[in-house]
Amino acid sequence: MRVGIIGATGYGGAELLRLLNQHPHVQEVVLYTSSKEGMNIQESYPHVSNIYNQTLKSIDVTSIKDEVDTVFLATPPGVSAEWSGQIAEAGCRVIDLSGDLRLQNPEVYEKWYKREAAPLALINDAVYGLPEWNRESIQKAQIISNPGCYPTATLLGLAPLVKNKLIDVDSIIIDAKSGTSGAGRSPSAITHFSEMNENFKIYQINQHKHIPEIEQNLHQWDEQVQSITFQPHLVPMVRGIMATIYAKANQQISETELRDLYKEAYRNEYFVRIRPEGAYPATKEVYGSNYCDIGLTYDERTGRITVVSVIDNVVKGASGQAIQNFNLIHGFEEDTGLTLVPMYP
Amino acid sequence: MRVGIIGATGYGGAELLRLLNQHPHVQEVVLYTSSKEGMNIQESYPHVSNIYNQTLKSIDVTSIKDEVDTVFLATPPGVSAEWSGQIAEAGCRVIDLSGDLRLQNPEVYEKWYKREAAPLALINDAVYGLPEWNRESIQKAQIISNPGCYPTATLLGLAPLVKNKLIDVDSIIIDAKSGTSGAGRSPSAITHFSEMNENFKIYQINQHKHIPEIEQNLHQWDEQVQSITFQPHLVPMVRGIMATIYAKANQQISETELRDLYKEAYRNEYFVRIRPEGAYPATKEVYGSNYCDIGLTYDERTGRITVVSVIDNVVKGASGQAIQNFNLIHGFEEDTGLTLVPMYP
Amino acid sequence: MRVGIIGATGYGGAELLRLLNQHPHVQEVVLYTSSKEGMNIQESYPHVSNIYNQTLKSIDVTSIKDEVDTVFLATPPGVSAEWSGQIAEAGCRVIDLSGDLRLQNPEVYEKWYKREAAPLALINDAVYGLPEWNRESIQKAQIISNPGCYPTATLLGLAPLVKNKLIDVDSIIIDAKSGTSGAGRSPSAITHFSEMNENFKIYQINQHKHIPEIEQNLHQWDEQVQSITFQPHLVPMVRGIMATIYAKANQQISETELRDLYKEAYRNEYFVRIRPEGAYPATKEVYGSNYCDIGLTYDERTGRITVVSVIDNVVKGASGQAIQNFNLIHGFEEDTGLTLVPMYP
Amino acid sequence: MRVGIIGATGYGGAELLRLLNQHPHVQEVVLYTSSKEGMNIQESYPHVSNIYNQTLKSIDVTSIKDEVDTVFLATPPGVSAEWSGQIAEAGCRVIDLSGDLRLQNPEVYEKWYKREAAPLALINDAVYGLPEWNRESIQKAQIISNPGCYPTATLLGLAPLVKNKLIDVDSIIIDAKSGTSGAGRSPSAITHFSEMNENFKIYQINQHKHIPEIEQNLHQWDEQVQSITFQPHLVPMVRGIMATIYAKANQQISETELRDLYKEAYRNEYFVRIRPEGAYPATKEVYGSNYCDIGLTYDERTGRITVVSVIDNVVKGASGQAIQNFNLIHGFEEDTGLTLVPMYP
Repeated sequence: MRVGIIGATGYGGAELLRLLNQHPHVQEVVLYTSSKEGMNIQESYPHVSNIYNQTLKSIDVTSIKDEVDTVFLATPPGVSAEWSGQIAEAGCRVIDLSGDLRLQNPEVYEKWYKREAAPLALINDAVYGLPEWNRESIQKAQIISNPGCYPTATLLGLAPLVKNKLIDVDSIIIDAKSGTSGAGRSPSAITHFSEMNENFKIYQINQHKHIPEIEQNLHQWDEQVQSITFQPHLVPMVRGIMATIYAKANQQISETELRDLYKEAYRNEYFVRIRPEGAYPATKEVYGSNYCDIGLTYDERTGRITVVSVIDNVVKGASGQAIQNFNLIHGFEEDTGLTLVPMYP
Repeated sequence: MRVGIIGATGYGGAELLRLLNQHPHVQEVVLYTSSKEGMNIQESYPHVSNIYNQTLKSIDVTSIKDEVDTVFLATPPGVSAEWSGQIAEAGCRVIDLSGDLRLQNPEVYEKWYKREAAPLALINDAVYGLPEWNRESIQKAQIISNPGCYPTATLLGLAPLVKNKLIDVDSIIIDAKSGTSGAGRSPSAITHFSEMNENFKIYQINQHKHIPEIEQNLHQWDEQVQSITFQPHLVPMVRGIMATIYAKANQQISETELRDLYKEAYRNEYFVRIRPEGAYPATKEVYGSNYCDIGLTYDERTGRITVVSVIDNVVKGASGQAIQNFNLIHGFEEDTGLTLVPMYP
Repeated sequence: MRVGIIGATGYGGAELLRLLNQHPHVQEVVLYTSSKEGMNIQESYPHVSNIYNQTLKSIDVTSIKDEVDTVFLATPPGVSAEWSGQIAEAGCRVIDLSGDLRLQNPEVYEKWYKREAAPLALINDAVYGLPEWNRESIQKAQIISNPGCYPTATLLGLAPLVKNKLIDVDSIIIDAKSGTSGAGRSPSAITHFSEMNENFKIYQINQHKHIPEIEQNLHQWDEQVQSITFQPHLVPMVRGIMATIYAKANQQISETELRDLYKEAYRNEYFVRIRPEGAYPATKEVYGSNYCDIGLTYDERTGRITVVSVIDNVVKGASGQAIQNFNLIHGFEEDTGLTLVPMYP
Repeated sequence: MRVGIIGATGYGGAELLRLLNQHPHVQEVVLYTSSKEGMNIQESYPHVSNIYNQTLKSIDVTSIKDEVDTVFLATPPGVSAEWSGQIAEAGCRVIDLSGDLRLQNPEVYEKWYKREAAPLALINDAVYGLPEWNRESIQKAQIISNPGCYPTATLLGLAPLVKNKLIDVDSIIIDAKSGTSGAGRSPSAITHFSEMNENFKIYQINQHKHIPEIEQNLHQWDEQVQSITFQPHLVPMVRGIMATIYAKANQQISETELRDLYKEAYRNEYFVRIRPEGAYPATKEVYGSNYCDIGLTYDERTGRITVVSVIDNVVKGASGQAIQNFNLIHGFEEDTGLTLVPMYP
């Protein structure tokens, strides 16, 4: 299998390089760029010295068609909207890690992203790549829209509750915390080390682009769910997301029943691990891996459920999940190349 | 003014040393200990070399009475319950930074702290030292029970909403994040650097001792408030608390009205700063200072208010607030010795 | 006393704001800028809300002369070369925190800084502001060139050895480590949080601009000293410098003699603290303060002395030392406004 | 191949678990303990949930012999001295990650380690496991003494210079910096998060146990080398070592010649990467991998060479190198299971 990456110099791209190197069915990786043609990847990433030696090529659909079978787009907004359709038409599978194709309603996209939506036909062709809850569609897809990092942690944490209608639909609050790698590789004031270390920040209050993505999926699972409260925060660490999810139970439920529900829901899921009673995951426990670890509790005093869901935002929240989808569309075992043990400490 | 510190080798004690050094009315600081008698404070804290040269003395009420006017207790559970009453009877003012005297109901104390409560008479004598909302009682108090770090950030953030009955009383959720200094100076697995750095943790789920302290105060402000949801998290940083507070508005309210309400509530408060529209505080913006900075928003989509309240847990959440109380009980200007500008970056 | 700051939006400027706020003889602080005229300082630094409310003014020598007595320049290269002379001529004292006036030989400046040197007359007028070893000249100076952060830690660490000719002059190696605040406030790839956290870097190998500054001073103390080896590193922390200094003793010396030498040399120096036998300072032990802490050892196996010198790069390495110089030129007690206890933890 | 680990609950053990999971020739991993018999590994390390489910067994040579082919000891001082001999005699290969068998001279061991040395016969049987310079002996060994983390970075950085006699033998200074994982998993004051974050420390001045280990090897390469200066520091990060190595060239040498020398020396070494001119490695560039990256410079002003050598202390400095040795003694390709790309960022 030959794969291409558009956007290899960003963090999503770098992580694809790391993970694809372990993939037994990937023989060749070709790197494409819209702006850095001719640069050797080692100039951008010395850590791949002696491992990858590719020079970045310009994006050309005809060449891409000849050179690779699948293309990963780890690109800024707008690139996928422009290229994914053409690449797919040329016969390649496309796995888009950007947000361009995630929202089915272009108006919603334009409201939250404040830019023009991708062509509707392209959006309609794209399948939302959350394997645990969308596996069958993914297997048949030509174009995958890989979920956002926050939606991945949140949706895996909420799915059993929402699908089983166990909570008040307007009580959902997600207090999310992320490492800085989610903000990408471009230096900025907010992620300047001197401003971010020994600091904890809230950002994009009520405005994060992942809000409509979460709502869209919850609504598909239970059409009564309309809107949620989601507030993201930046943690002085590089990798990791914790979504602390609050919801009011709409009936008495014991913590054991709750845990059993989750265990059953994810019984066959290699990448979802439910913590035992009294235990809750920390982000480091999934560091560098494709796992989503979940802890649960029900507080009888308040009638409120708290779900703690953690992922590595660069892996299960981006490149790892992309490869999970890659495996699905090509009929490989779903965990191929993704069995890395979390790095601890 | 001569002051004593019991527990100077902990972080609360170290911070008292830092702040009292700037206090114009403190001529002498005497250090007491229950376990490290004879040790020079510099052995424990080289950073006070050439500044403090005291040797720790054992706790003896007769000597304390002769040596100091006010005693700060920055001590583990149980110490204040044992000593505060005697020291106060001997004539000293007592400012207790521990949790021993914060809960008025001994049964509630014993349920949450899982240890014997202090004598009821002592509890009844102690005044809760949250100056912004309890100033008059503090000025007349012999014994101050200094608030916990999380309650300080939370109560200052919630007071205007609760006192004005603007929110559903059972909708309050506090997602709190703290630096590790709140866990104290004793090494432990949870705060071992290799386990805490590049990591984000939730802890004490539904069980933190500050829950009843928050509830007790909210209930005093609006007896309809019974229970809250409060989940604390550990951030890989040393200082700082952010409380992200969620509550459902029980009426239409504009963000401007909300901000005006807070500005009015804290109009005369030197240590509370309300951020302008669209701005939210980060913990570093109060680093090393006694400020509590607050940002606010109302989301029309969900009808939910989000309050962001940040403090330095070691200052406004402990030693700084203790000195603020010290100023009040002695009739000094409330900000005496506390006008330090936050350290940034 | 009215003081002006040119460059208040950088970290050196922010630290001047923090420290000047504690200075009893500073009644007014006026802020000047070459590029951000009209901006309120709180827009750039929310942490000074309610404390400073100044609007930045453009640089105009006539106004400056009328408005302030002393001007601090915390500016990028070239600004001081342009303005310091005019401001001094207009009658203000000038304290320049930039590197423009530190090197007495313009050729050396141009070689290392790779830009045009300041006018020679201006350079000659400027006095190097290392109070511990240059106090008398500072007291009479109109223009102070405030030392670099690395030179401050290094020169205080090396002075007793060099002045007493106790080491081989060509054996000096300084392995220096700094927090990221020394790199300033402009976001860059090297100080991007995701690239700097959980990382340790060496930079400017054999090329750091502080090399000639260190050499110039050592040479003045012992003209036999020609060149040194100096390699700087970046630590994933914000504040603090440690200079680990290696030199070959040119004679037998006991560790006790060594320590006595340093204690004697700094006997009357408020801001230099020598650690006792077997103890070495960590950077946090001077955090936020104007101290330089020094530890010493002599290894009989190798005949080599190791000196460990730590400062807070933003305080003793920049703004604190600038205020120390300010005190000297105005005849205030040298530690006025600078008695802050290090913040720990 | 079946392998055993003694000491799996420490960091060296955890890293063996991570790496062995990727090793194609390892079918089974058995865990032994001297103190935690009966504990499931997931209790100690939730991050291996669903991956490892072993219960720790007590150390029993007869069982070990039957159960595994090779035993890794990732144990505190003294354990290997007690058990390695017996296990080897029983027929297993032994790879000892502790320092028990590294020093050939028991007197030197006892001086630096301040405890009794292992039996001389056992020491003599152990082969020092630095594959790049000791490959042939390793291939034939029954017992491997895996190098210390600092010696690995230092010796790989110094070997070409020392073996080619290019430097003054008494001019070697190693200024080493390590993440905290090297200090192990036991909580302590020095690695308490609140004391270590935003801090940089020097420790074990002139006394680190790795000094004689480095000297022993250098002396074997050039018997003129007697003693070195080595000072270790703690960086507020978890993983990574940088050794900044200084030595005086004993002849004119150009930087190009120097680089060519290193490139030639490590031409066939998969795990050693030499940076091109003007480039120097940061620790993150080898994060989680078995690489040792080296940068070089020669300063004509001082005649001094600076070598920058970085490793991940837990991988190439411990468990990765142990598996490299494991591969060698079993005749596997040396990089088997070790081709992980560094994790970046």
